[in-house]
Order: sequence, then C-alpha cells, then structure tokens
Amino acid sequence: MIQHPAFTVAPWSVRESRLHTDVLAQTESVFALSNGHIGLRGNLDEGEPHGLPGTYLNSVYELRPLPYPEGGYGYPESGQTIVNVTNGKLIRLLVDDEPFDVRYGTLHGHERVLDLRAGTLVRRVRWSSPTGAEVRVTSTRLVSFTHRSVAAIRYEVEAVGRPLNIVVQSELVANETVPSMTSDPRAAAALEEPLVLEENTPALTGVGVMVHSTRQSRLRVAAGMRNEIDGPEGTRVEPDGGGHVNRVTVATRLRPGGRLRLDKFFAYGWSAKRSRPAMHDQVVAALAAARLAGWDGLCAEQRRYLDEFWAGADVEVDGDAEIQQAVRFGLFHLLQAGARLERRPIAGKGLTGSGYDGHAFWDTESFVLPVLTYTHPQAAADALCWRESIRPLAQERAVQLGLTGSAFPWRTINGEECSGYWPAGTAAFHVNADIADAVTRYVDATEDSRFERETGLPLLISTARLWCALGHHDAEGRYRIDGVTGPDEYSAVSDNNVYTNLMAQRNLRAAVDTATRHPDLAEKLGVSVEETARWRDGAAAMFVPYDDRLGVHPQSEGFTSHAVWDFAGTGPEQYPLLLHFPYFDLYRKQVVKQADLVLALHLCGESFTPDQKARDFAYYEALTVRDSSLSACTQSVMAAEVGDLELAYAYLGEAALMDLRDLEHNTRDGLHMASLAGAWTALVAGFGGMRAGGGRMCFAPRLPDGITRLAFRLRYRGRLLKVEVTPGATTYRLLGGRPITLSHHGEELHLAQEPVTLPTPAAPALHTEIRQPPGREPAPRRHGTA
Amino acid sequence: MIQHPAFTVAPWSVRESRLHTDVLAQTESVFALSNGHIGLRGNLDEGEPHGLPGTYLNSVYELRPLPYPEGGYGYPESGQTIVNVTNGKLIRLLVDDEPFDVRYGTLHGHERVLDLRAGTLVRRVRWSSPTGAEVRVTSTRLVSFTHRSVAAIRYEVEAVGRPLNIVVQSELVANETVPSMTSDPRAAAALEEPLVLEENTPALTGVGVMVHSTRQSRLRVAAGMRNEIDGPEGTRVEPDGGGHVNRVTVATRLRPGGRLRLDKFFAYGWSAKRSRPAMHDQVVAALAAARLAGWDGLCAEQRRYLDEFWAGADVEVDGDAEIQQAVRFGLFHLLQAGARLERRPIAGKGLTGSGYDGHAFWDTESFVLPVLTYTHPQAAADALCWRESIRPLAQERAVQLGLTGSAFPWRTINGEECSGYWPAGTAAFHVNADIADAVTRYVDATEDSRFERETGLPLLISTARLWCALGHHDAEGRYRIDGVTGPDEYSAVSDNNVYTNLMAQRNLRAAVDTATRHPDLAEKLGVSVEETARWRDGAAAMFVPYDDRLGVHPQSEGFTSHAVWDFAGTGPEQYPLLLHFPYFDLYRKQVVKQADLVLALHLCGESFTPDQKARDFAYYEALTVRDSSLSACTQSVMAAEVGDLELAYAYLGEAALMDLRDLEHNTRDGLHMASLAGAWTALVAGFGGMRAGGGRMCFAPRLPDGITRLAFRLRYRGRLLKVEVTPGATTYRLLGGRPITLSHHGEELHLAQEPVTLPTPAAPALHTEIRQPPGREPAPRRHGTA
Repeated sequence: MIQHPAFTVAPWSVRESRLHTDVLAQTESVFALSNGHIGLRGNLDEGEPHGLPGTYLNSVYELRPLPYPEGGYGYPESGQTIVNVTNGKLIRLLVDDEPFDVRYGTLHGHERVLDLRAGTLVRRVRWSSPTGAEVRVTSTRLVSFTHRSVAAIRYEVEAVGRPLNIVVQSELVANETVPSMTSDPRAAAALEEPLVLEENTPALTGVGVMVHSTRQSRLRVAAGMRNEIDGPEGTRVEPDGGGHVNRVTVATRLRPGGRLRLDKFFAYGWSAKRSRPAMHDQVVAALAAARLAGWDGLCAEQRRYLDEFWAGADVEVDGDAEIQQAVRFGLFHLLQAGARLERRPIAGKGLTGSGYDGHAFWDTESFVLPVLTYTHPQAAADALCWRESIRPLAQERAVQLGLTGSAFPWRTINGEECSGYWPAGTAAFHVNADIADAVTRYVDATEDSRFERETGLPLLISTARLWCALGHHDAEGRYRIDGVTGPDEYSAVSDNNVYTNLMAQRNLRAAVDTATRHPDLAEKLGVSVEETARWRDGAAAMFVPYDDRLGVHPQSEGFTSHAVWDFAGTGPEQYPLLLHFPYFDLYRKQVVKQADLVLALHLCGESFTPDQKARDFAYYEALTVRDSSLSACTQSVMAAEVGDLELAYAYLGEAALMDLRDLEHNTRDGLHMASLAGAWTALVAGFGGMRAGGGRMCFAPRLPDGITRLAFRLRYRGRLLKVEVTPGATTYRLLGGRPITLSHHGEELHLAQEPVTLPTPAAPALHTEIRQPPGREPAPRRHGTA
Repeated sequence: MIQHPAFTVAPWSVRESRLHTDVLAQTESVFALSNGHIGLRGNLDEGEPHGLPGTYLNSVYELRPLPYPEGGYGYPESGQTIVNVTNGKLIRLLVDDEPFDVRYGTLHGHERVLDLRAGTLVRRVRWSSPTGAEVRVTSTRLVSFTHRSVAAIRYEVEAVGRPLNIVVQSELVANETVPSMTSDPRAAAALEEPLVLEENTPALTGVGVMVHSTRQSRLRVAAGMRNEIDGPEGTRVEPDGGGHVNRVTVATRLRPGGRLRLDKFFAYGWSAKRSRPAMHDQVVAALAAARLAGWDGLCAEQRRYLDEFWAGADVEVDGDAEIQQAVRFGLFHLLQAGARLERRPIAGKGLTGSGYDGHAFWDTESFVLPVLTYTHPQAAADALCWRESIRPLAQERAVQLGLTGSAFPWRTINGEECSGYWPAGTAAFHVNADIADAVTRYVDATEDSRFERETGLPLLISTARLWCALGHHDAEGRYRIDGVTGPDEYSAVSDNNVYTNLMAQRNLRAAVDTATRHPDLAEKLGVSVEETARWRDGAAAMFVPYDDRLGVHPQSEGFTSHAVWDFAGTGPEQYPLLLHFPYFDLYRKQVVKQADLVLALHLCGESFTPDQKARDFAYYEALTVRDSSLSACTQSVMAAEVGDLELAYAYLGEAALMDLRDLEHNTRDGLHMASLAGAWTALVAGFGGMRAGGGRMCFAPRLPDGITRLAFRLRYRGRLLKVEVTPGATTYRLLGGRPITLSHHGEELHLAQEPVTLPTPAAPALHTEIRQPPGREPAPRRHGTA
C-alpha cells in the first residue's frame, strides 16, 4: 500500500508533492501517459532511479516458451510478453560535473502533477548537486491523443544562484535492463535483450531514428526523435548514435536565472510486415506533422480532445473529494487505454506496466467497455474490432479444442491463447459470452449499424456456435454447460455455472436476434434457420441450478453442498488465499475470490427476482474474500440495488482507490483498468442505478450518506444525457440529441429540451443481514489526506 | 506394437530367435533383469546398438526443476528422475581388427532366452566380421536374488574356422549418453551428465571400482567389478581406468574351436550418507562374497530362490500357451521388482526402464501388491515399509496442503511429491486409501503382527486422519468428499467419487479396527476415543451417490448428467484420447480412461448388490476406452463376476500381453508392472473368483471356453494352497500349513490334508447387453505364434 499521503486530493489532478523513492514503481504506474497506442510509464526524465522502466507500443510483444512439467494436448507452447521498447522519454542532465540524480545532492523540491484536463504530466524540481550547483528543472510530458504515434516533452533547466555548465542529453535507448518478472530463466533470457538493432541514424539532419526487430516474434519497431533547442548563445548541439543509443547532446553555459529549453518530439511505429526504410520514413513523417503543430499546438489539441471527452463522460461527486478525484483519474486512464486503439486490444493494465505480461483478458469486455461504451464509444468499438480481427485465430483454437465457432483466448496479445493453466484459462469460456455481451451493449448504445453488420454479427454468430458445442440437453431436456470455469478463480471446472449459463443464454439470444435482423448477412455467414432454432432452443432450455433448501442460487451446480471455507481459522496474513492455500482446497470449498454469481445478478438482473437478488447477494457476501480487483465494483452495484447503500459506498471506495492507494500491493506492475472502470460503474450503475438494453436506459438513483450530490454524463443513441442526483431529487437533462424515453425507478419519463426532476426515493428495507467473512469487510477509508 | 512374432511361446521362458534391431528398446525392457535393488535393461553386452541403455539402482535419482507457466501454492518445485548409473554389464569384443557389432558383418544367428526358472538371460550369437572372422559368443547374465548388490555375466567367445586375435574389454562406464525423454532443455541438461566422478581405481589388484555422486540429489554410487578369465596360455590381462571408464582388457589368440571365458562379477552400492571409502569397501566386500559363491554357486542359488517362489506362486493355464507364458513372465518380473526391496519402492516400471521418470504410483498398492501379498508376501511388506519410511514427508505435505494426517505423493522416488499437474496428481487422494487397503490386505494374508504394529497402524492412522480433513458432513448428515480425482484420469476434481469414498470408508474402518485392537499403541500415536468415533461416524455416513433414473452409480456426483463422449465420431487413430483431445473436453464428458467405478466393484464388492454390479459394469463398459494399462485386468475380473466369461478372457489377453506384444507402444520405456500383475489378477481373482479379507479366503471359479484347466498356488495365513479348476470341477489342496476354512461359490469348505473337489458351476445368465465404445472392444489375439 502507498502508506503515506502520496497524492494530494484535488478534483482535476493527481499531485505528488515530494518524491518518495520507495514507491517509485507505483507512482510510475499512476503517472503513466498513454493514448492506447503508445504507453510511457511515469519514469523520471533522467531514467534513474526507476522502479520499472517502461515504454510500450500496443501489441508489440515477444514470444517466450511456456514450459510444463507435464504437458497436455492443446496446451499453448508459446507465451507472449509485452516488450519494453525504445525509450524515447530519456533526457539526462549534467550540472557542472555532476549528473542530475535525485539520489545524490539535495532535493529542495520535487513535484509531479498529472493534469486530467490538460493530459500532461508536469514535473518541477529544484535540486543542488553535491558541490552546490543548483538548478530548477521543469518538464512537461504528453502522449498525444491527436497524433497517434507521437509523444513530446518540454524540458527546461534554469541555473539558480550562480553560472553553471549545463549538458542535456536527449536520447533514444533500446534494450534497457528491466527487473525480471519471471522465475523461469529461459523466459527471462528471451526477454533480456529483446530488440535486435537494424538501424541507428543519428540526428545529423534533425531527426534521429533507430529501427529494431524483436527476436522471435519478428516485429519491427521504429523510434525517432526531433529536438528543438532554445538556449543562450553559444549553446552547442551534437547528435550521435551507436549501439542501442541514439543521442543529441546539448551543451551550454547558463548565467543565474538563465534557461535552456528543449522540446523533444518522439514518434513510434511498428509493423510485422513493413520494411525498415518504410518504418524509418513513417516516424520521420510523424515527427514532421508534430513539428508542424509545435509544442503549443500539441498541448492545445490535447486539451480540446479532453474537453470533448469530459463533456460526455464527467462524473461529479460532491461531499467526497477523494472519490471525485478517483473517478476522474479512472476515466482519464480508461480514455488513455482506449483512445487510439485502432483495432488493438486494451490490456488488463492498459499500457501502464508489464503486469500480466501485457495481456488482455475478459476484464476489458466486462468491466472496461461498459464504461467506454457510454463515455467514449469509439474506443469500445475499436476494442471489439480487435476481437473480430483475431476471430480467425479463435476459430482455429476452437477447432483444436474440438469445438465449433470461436474460442477466444483467456489471455493474449496477438490473439493466440497463452494461458498456461487451463482450469483457469481455456476452461473459462465465459470470455466468449462477455465479448458477445459487449457487442450487444455497444450496438444498443450507439445503433452503429455498420459495426453491427461487419463486426457484431460475426462475433455473435461465432460465439453462439461455441455454446452449441459446449452445451448439451440432459434427459430432462435441460440445456447444460458442464465442466467450465466461471469468473470466480477460487472455483474451476464445474457444471452449470450460473453466470456462464445466463451469459451464454444472452449470447445465443443476441445471435438469434441479430441474425434475424440481417438475414442476408447471416446466410452469408452460413447461418441456417435450423441453426438459429438450435440457438433459440438452447437459450430457452438453459439450466439455471437453484438450491431449494437454502433458497439461493449455487454459483455452480453442487457449490452449496461444499464445505464452507474456515474463515475463522484464516488469519489476515493469509490473504490473498491463493498465495497460502493450494488450489485444490480453494476449489472444493465455498469461498469466492470475486463476484461470480453476484456479477450475474448485476449483468443478468432480469433473470432474478428482487427477493432472489437480496438472498443471493447476502449468501455470497459471506463467502467472498475479494482477492481480485474484479469484485468490489460489482459488489458495490449489487449492494446498492438490494439497498445496503453504506456497504455499496465502502466498496466504491475500494474499487476507486485500488491504484491511488495501491490496495492490492501490485500497482507497481501497472494500473488495474477494470478497477479504475469500477469507480464509474459503482457510481453510475450502483448509485445511479443505470441499466441499459433493448433501446431503453433505466435509472434507479439513490445516494449513500456522504455523497451529497452525484452528477454524471452519458452518451446513448446519439444523445448526451446528464443525470444529477441529490438525496431529495434527481434531475435528468438532455444536453444533446433527440428526445428520449428513460426510466426512473421503473417509472417512464420522457426527456426533451426541458429537464425533468423526480424524487430520489430512500433505499428499500434490508430483510437480510449482510456480512463479509471475518476480516474481509471493505477497508475503512482515510478521507482526504493531503 | 511388436509387429512380428518376436518371442517364441514356451511355458517357462521368453525366447527371441533372431535379433530385430527395430524393436531393440522393447526387447531391452522384456529382457530386463532385476532383484528390486539393481536393474539391468537387456542391452546387448557390447553396448551398441541400443534402444535405451539402462542400469538402475532403486531410489538413485537426480533432481530437476519443474517449470510452470503459471505457478501456484503447493506446486512441487523439484522433480526426481531415475538415473542411468554406472553400466557394469558392458563387455566389448574385438575380433581380429573388427569390433563385434551386429550392425556390421554377418549375423548367422542371434538368440536371447529369458529363463523364468533359472533367472538368467542367455544370449547365443554366431557372427562373422566383414573380413570373415567368425566367432560364437555366448553370454549368460543374472542379477542375483541372493546377493542383493551383485550381478554377474559369464561371457564366452569361441573362434570358428580359423585362428583369431580376440580382445575382450570388460568395463564399468558412467554417464553414458541416453536419448532424452524430456522436451524441457533444462531438465535434459540436468540429466546429461548426472554423475560426478569421485574415484576411479583400476583393477590392478583384482577389483576395479568407480565412485560417483549425483550432482543435485547428492547420492553416492559405487560400482565395482572383478573379472575371472579362463583362456589359452598367453592370454594377457590389463586393467586401466580413466575418466568415467574403468576397464579390464583381455587379449588372446584363439585357435579354431578355442575359447575364451570371462566371468564378470559386478556390484553396486549407494548411499546418501556413507563416505567414499566406505562405499568403495562395500562393493569390494560384495564382490568377495560373490566370488566365494562363484559363477556356479550364484546360478544354483538363483534357481533355488526361484524354485521356492514358484512353489508358492505358479499359475498353470492349460489350453492357452500364450497366456501360460505371459502369466509366468508377469510373475517373474513382479518378483524381480520386489524381491530385494528392503524398504524401497516398486516403481511403475520396476527397474526395467526410465518411463514415468522411475516414479512409484498407486499402481503398486492397488495392482502389484495384491499379487505379491499372496505369492511373495515379504515384497509386499517391504514396499509398505517404504511407505511408512516416507510417512514423515507425507505428513509435511499434508500440513503444506492444510490437511491433517499424511498426504502421500502421487508420484515420487524419494517420498516428495513430484507431480506437476495437480488435478491428476495431488487431487488424486485415493492413493492414501490404496496404501491403507494394501496394509489391510497384507495383514489379513499374513497375520504379521509385528508389521501391523510397527508399519500398519501408523499408516492406517495417518491416512484415516487425512480423510477426516478431506471429508465433511452436509446438511443431510452425509459425509462428502468433494473436489478430488478418482482413478479415471479422464475425469478430475469432482465430488464424491464412488471409488474414493468407498476406499476412504474402508480406510477409516480399518483404522478403527486396528487402533481398537492395539489401544496402547494407538494412544501413543495420539489416537483418542473421540478420534476413532469420528472415523467410525465418517465411515458410517459416507455418501455414495446413486442415479435412480438410470439405476447405476455415477462415477462421481453428477457424472451421469454429463454428455456422453462422441464415440461414433472418434476415429481409431484418435486413441489414446489424451493425445488428441484437451483435458477440459475429456473431463466434462462421460468417457472413462480406466476402471474407476468398476475398480470399486472389484475392490469394494461388498458395497454393491450383484444386480448393481451387473448394471454398473454394463454402463461403464460402454464408456471405457482403456487408454491406460490399469484397466483391462479389472474389467476382466468384473466381466467374470457378472458372467461374461468370453469378455473376461479377452481382457485377460490384453492385460497379459501388454508388454510381450507391446500393446500400448511404450514397452520401450519399461514394463508395465501393474498390467503384468493384471494377468495373475484376471486369472486368480477373475476366473478363480478369489476374494480375501477378514481371515476368510473365498473362491468362485469359472472357466471360459479356451482354458481347459487353471491351477494356481497361493500363500495365505501360513498355508500354501493349490486350487485347480477345470470346467467340471474345482479341487482345493492344502500343500502346507494348518487346516483352513475356505469358501467356494458362497459355500463353506473345510480344507485339511485331503483335497476337496467341488463342481465348477456355469456362469450366471447375463441380463444386460455388454458392449464397449465402437472400436474399443478388446483386441482379438493372434494365438501361439512361434
């Protein structure tokens, strides 16, 4: 956990007021900049000290062997790992004879500010060398939303007190030494020097370029830079390059108060196909466009892009400044992860770190896209277009597994499965229904018919076909899906997981509906009337187990007969359980890592009565330990729905502060995109009660004590909506688009030009006692530290 | 499969009448010699060509890393692999200028005979070199049953036709190059040169000695040899040694018809503790004792040992010469695996090859020991004493897994778990009940009360404690064992596996009974009355699921609701299924690799009615594909019991000929001890209907068409029994020991001096059609090839 008050609470920024070198890796994640294509961790300009140096390009990975002590048919033999590509953010500084390094000399001040409206990371340092040479350094860094392949840094040095010799080295460096994330020496070896040099052209004519290739995956990466220098007369600039370094050295002498300014534009390109000269030219061209815009132009475009985003996405939270900051921080990083995807995936950590090897999971479709769909829908479309682009691989995988349709990978970068533990990987087929659900949601929210035809329908059909291969009718005519793994990773390979079965049911129905609406296209994709009939029948007969004795749904068939985990005998130091107990023990007992049945209550709410929801929620609360970041937000939503607003509020805090407070102690590896999304979800779907589908958006707002006003903006079917909730009343406003019919606590409301205000009702009475396993109650929050 | 008529069918030997170099590795396994301590594969004396060179010492292993693509708590980090130790059987021959190598020159004749009564492997060769120099070579090899650490070879060369220069090199060679059995380069590297030289003393004073240590496991291995030479005058003998070779070179000139004879005695010792000089002296001493016996003495002792064995173990099968040979071949190899264990394990392949890394599994307790218990009980005791010796490690493992009692490893050499795939390893807890069952069976068969107190009771208590940790009562008071894996490896991690639950029940009851009979000792082992009460209660409430609709027992809870495997759509080339289908698909469907519920029908027969047995057997026959060698014998036993004698006979053939016909195409890696045992089991427990327990031995003999007479000998409670079955009558004889009451088809019979003859009834009528999955019927047998 980030133990000290690391970040100042402010509505539109995240500020670190002094440097904490012990949590450097965590702050590098928090201060990461990205546009979904390029990702720069918040490493210090001068490169050292660092927690984890990181410069990423979406989908640039290296292959590594996946070793098994005992192999098996269909096990992936090769894994993919995100590669730390050429570091373009490196700017070294020599002050008199002394390298600027915060670990030496005296740091008089060190501030970093992530500005959520400007889209920049500003750093201000005042530092004296061990010999007393003092400088002010200010750097402003951005990864452009408008120039997809461009990042830029304005770097300023000012001499304080006495004249100083200043040397600035602006660099591109490849194959930085990265702390090993794997215990497998072969994998580590494969990733030690991932980039093979193909070209290193010094910036003699203004632009320095390096081109590399990855060793196994054969991806070509080009990085280029252009440095514009503004210094006193006599400032000398010298480009050079050798090995994996491309450098521009700027030497000058500053009088006291004198300044040297460097505007560094750097650009990336990568390709599996394009030649070295083509890649070279590509980055040179990108830099030309960036130079045309200039530093000020880039900054202005950045702000305009963000203004447009916030206009449709902002969430205002009065009464809780910490949550206010956190939800905007989360939305900002979600935008960063998705803005310029262009048919590439959103990884579990976005491009903020190398955690989970840079892989994308179901988190994207189930947690991240629901937010982007209503706030920045193009990003959701892009992420799903990536799924469609890897569908051929998913179909091959299905064939390999003896199935039909597509079997999307549990974790991947390039579309090939690289989960090395099939009970919690391949067997978690629900990822396919999650993709289908994201498709359905996006189409409902945007009416994007081109997407529906070109991307949505093929995805819906191929996933529906998978469920036909996975399901079968039993003697009583029930449609069963046996031997699969649901969301909860403390259970695996069980029969009739309720979440999976209900999501498969939605998947089948969506495929039927969409295929029926586009009969021409469906026919082209080989869908017959017989096939849609099978989908319809499978959905209709879908088996949803229920435990009559307990009056609850078992997470999977038989779950409620299992022994309940010995929570009383489990100490706080034994969490997360997976690090202290074997899987066999977790799997065979009633203990839940993360919302599973409860996620079904949220996403498939129409399949449960309010009474069932209340009883199910209470039952699973007592079993859920939240050893996963994919849980608190869902629990928050359902706590709000069943009426425990205080608990919902507590879970909101946990989801929202996951990374700003490093609650799971792994923010160093990158931010938790799903949990960042969870803050929005807990507020909008939880306290806002927002549910949408079938062309209808519904709200059921209620506020907990502590939030005095909640306002959020949404995009839905061409409308821009604003909902403003206070304890007494809720006001709906149409900020853009044609009139629309909404629902407020089940009551229809027609919204046109005029705002509509309706009372915010109190929460329903709670009939069941809700408690968590001992010691697993949501953590109490330290409010508003400075 | 050994495609050609490899071996002559003969009652007391296995003869290969010419050399088939394409199946060299298979014949090396078939012709392996062992005494349970030393194992020599049937490699040619001259070392090359070879399939897999192999010289093994029981429990000499090397450690190797177990890599996981995704690790987990409690996963073993280190594996163990049997090591090919110093090869002492190597004798090279130079004929004039030409090395004797069957791949060159002309092989006029090559015969190898494994003599099951003499306990020797005899080889007779007539060979001409490319230049026409002709020799007769005869070698006789034995691994002594009476001198545990000694093996010997008599090697004779005769010049044919013309005078010849003959050079014989008798060697000890360490770190032979062995074909890699692993795809993991690190593991392969670890095993490439496993032995580090500590001493190499040439045989200047008669005995040559080499001492090595294994690199990681730190085991010291000493090998010594003494060569006695009988050749014409002028024969020169020269010892030398260097590197990993210790050599005695014998040079002579033979006139036509002249002979050189070499008697090579070689001895092994190993220790984790003893010093190099101590190990040196140990092998020198063993060789002194062997020399005292001399070649003829060793051969005579070997025959006496085997005569004694066959007197209590022989099975006679009239009417089927192939089965007659196979059952004796199996018994011989079982004796070889178990004779001189002395608290070491019997591996799945014995000491005949490096398959399964030389690991011991539950096969030993469940398939091998039931045979040895009634034929060579000391070996059964030794194998169980090994289990007792590793109990401390099994208890540590239980603690690591959060359990109580002992959790014996799924696969191991040194007692530590080295299964790298927990769903089919750690989760297969039934191994613990299998050990307990073997204890109970041995004590019942021998009344060995010292064993019961010192070995049996601690094993029964610690395994009973495990079941108490694994089981729990559900709301209806049933005792459930959830999330474990039964014998069938095409299912895993399911609830209430009937085999596991019934075997756990027996385990608990045996612990109660034995603890009650030895209250003093039980108290010392911490057993309270409360604890035995818990065991009793758990056993009494043990849940055995039953499918009322189908009228059969599900293998595990829910099994019969799963989809039935698409057998019709599975081609013959897709077996074994595990090589062509993913585990997730096998696990979720009704398809059975090997007897599981059917093994329960055999071992826990008292828990099923005859009608249930018939219906269960028929149900599982239609689902069982026998992709494991641990199945046909059990299916044979149950087919006989339910009355399908023809089917029982077919399965007998499959079990009995597994290795002699290489039915599973992996005899090259070593023999299948369990399947070799299965021939006996199918004959004695199947057609003999033998069941024993609680001091009572019962028979229910019936013969299939094709076997005209079946006779077998058994040891039980100090008696030596002979049962002789013909289609019309069964005769029981007491060959030794006090009178005893037996049972014949449920009828009591008192057996004293006089033989008792009773009618052999016909099989009961079959009420159910019994069929296998298409294409998985037992293979038709080629009878009596020569």
